[in-house]
Amino acid sequence: MKKRIVTISREFGSGGRTIGKQLAEKLGVPCYDKELIEKLAEQTGLAKKFIEEQGEYAPASHPFSYAFVGRGVNGLSVSDYLWNEQRKKIQEIAEKEACVIVGRCADYILRERKDVLNVFIHAPKEERAKRIVEVYGETDTEPLKRLRDKDKKRAVNYRYYTDQEWGRAQNYHLTIDSSAFGIEGSVNLLFNILTGEE
Amino acid sequence: MKKRIVTISREFGSGGRTIGKQLAEKLGVPCYDKELIEKLAEQTGLAKKFIEEQGEYAPASHPFSYAFVGRGVNGLSVSDYLWNEQRKKIQEIAEKEACVIVGRCADYILRERKDVLNVFIHAPKEERAKRIVEVYGETDTEPLKRLRDKDKKRAVNYRYYTDQEWGRAQNYHLTIDSSAFGIEGSVNLLFNILTGEE
Repeated sequence: MKKRIVTISREFGSGGRTIGKQLAEKLGVPCYDKELIEKLAEQTGLAKKFIEEQGEYAPASHPFSYAFVGRGVNGLSVSDYLWNEQRKKIQEIAEKEACVIVGRCADYILRERKDVLNVFIHAPKEERAKRIVEVYGETDTEPLKRLRDKDKKRAVNYRYYTDQEWGRAQNYHLTIDSSAFGIEGSVNLLFNILTGEE
Repeated sequence: MKKRIVTISREFGSGGRTIGKQLAEKLGVPCYDKELIEKLAEQTGLAKKFIEEQGEYAPASHPFSYAFVGRGVNGLSVSDYLWNEQRKKIQEIAEKEACVIVGRCADYILRERKDVLNVFIHAPKEERAKRIVEVYGETDTEPLKRLRDKDKKRAVNYRYYTDQEWGRAQNYHLTIDSSAFGIEGSVNLLFNILTGEE
């Protein structure tokens, strides 16, 4: 299996972002996550915070985006404008270099390419609830509700732009329960796939 | 990861059964698939063909099963009786030995055990359509319709007995697109996970 590019979709709190980052380091290739947001901010003139939230969550899920509806860029809503720019940027990156891309429907955007491995990382709710408190700290909202909200928004965004169901095994070449393999185990598993004989 | 038992759920035509069989051979453990049917036939007195179809497909999907509704064994329909016997047999096997079990909701039946790796094998429809003609030959029904029928029955059976959605990534520790890895690649991937350091 010769794959240059890995896309990582993930449930909130599953450690998918960390797995992507560590995998990229181990492979010696760039990981696009926050970096993608910075490039898009430069390119579109939109605020980073807006791109971060709007680029992965439900269209118009950010109160700010309502203000733009009907007077977006080139007749598009700002959500759709951002989606187009994000799509172009992801295609441009994939053309240019081997890399890991976290989130942002990259699996769908790059679906025509043969050199992409699409991965989905998930974990049981209880494990993810523990992890988000460890990684992001406590908030007023209880962890299980935070998970539900984020997962729901990601699923709606994915469905809206790809017309596919988020988290369905058939959308990915590989899905991993990170609680069964651990973060390091998941990184090693993917590293072996990408560098091994299989 | 220390796992003694592997359950393989699979889309029809994905090669999941072959992967299970070859993995078991490579690991030197038994693969329960047809063997399970034979054991169940001995135990229940039901016909092998009935068990083969009824044990994995929709309850009452076999015309024969209608005849039993309301006059099954111990007040159960024959489908539910078979499900109970199948559940007991799978639990008994898991208790006794390291093995690979193909299909039959074994992932769900063994969900409380910590020594089980639950795997789902799938592949794009076009690849599966090609494979079923190669493996099972042509029939009067066109291959894509054969796939739809079998997948639908397995999904309904799984939903009925487990109350979970078949093929949802979150039900499994690992899901594999066999068209991306190949049969041998998928076997090696699983073998390395089960015998390696991860």
